[in-house]
Amino acid sequence: MSGFQLDPRLAGEGIPVASLELCDALLRNDARTLWVVLVPRVAGREELHELSAEQQAQLMSEIARVSQAVHDIAQPTKVNTGALGNIVRQLHVHVVARHEGDFAWPGPVWGVGEREEMDETARTDLVAALRQRL
Amino acid sequence: MSGFQLDPRLAGEGIPVASLELCDALLRNDARTLWVVLVPRVAGREELHELSAEQQAQLMSEIARVSQAVHDIAQPTKVNTGALGNIVRQLHVHVVARHEGDFAWPGPVWGVGEREEMDETARTDLVAALRQRL
Repeated sequence: MSGFQLDPRLAGEGIPVASLELCDALLRNDARTLWVVLVPRVAGREELHELSAEQQAQLMSEIARVSQAVHDIAQPTKVNTGALGNIVRQLHVHVVARHEGDFAWPGPVWGVGEREEMDETARTDLVAALRQRL
Repeated sequence: MSGFQLDPRLAGEGIPVASLELCDALLRNDARTLWVVLVPRVAGREELHELSAEQQAQLMSEIARVSQAVHDIAQPTKVNTGALGNIVRQLHVHVVARHEGDFAWPGPVWGVGEREEMDETARTDLVAALRQRL
């Protein structure tokens, strides 16, 4: 995993929450919904099929763990998961709480509206709730 | 896996391509890009974290296999993968070829524009190319 460096665009919009076996988990600093980004600490990967079979399985395990945590904390209508990377190419996976009627419902969240910074209380509470569950 | 029935909305927009160990793979009948949908044959699941650990690992393996096939066939700028389910709740995963400048670039494809039916030659060729690789 040498040579891995978190993309500054992901780092700049996220708060480090946990270092899992494969991935860094970041809470996206967005007051609109609970939104976690997982970034495998593997240099030079852009696509899921570029990971080894073991890394793929571990990534899915971590996605599912985050999905369960997001579900438990935010009680969403649906969890949305996506690996796009059209703008930031470093492989990363979004796990997002969606509520019926939210800012992008029922469409996807990516590219819709502007990120809104959380206030400090919300941020502290969410980081604690995620750390407890991850 | 008893009780599983493919959601008619997914079936109506897709062409069955392969029955993998866990998932049905459907080629979405959309001329705009190469777009595959994977549907785990497990009844009553809406979220990734509701699958067993074994099913999660198998699903990721099948996602990666489809991603590699989409990459090889369409030579895209990026493969996009997503499990949303805000409209069709049956758990399903999209694997989509994205080319710089395509109909939704660099945003997500979901909910953008209208599906366009493929002509028969394109459909036959893509089904054959996918079957060869899956």
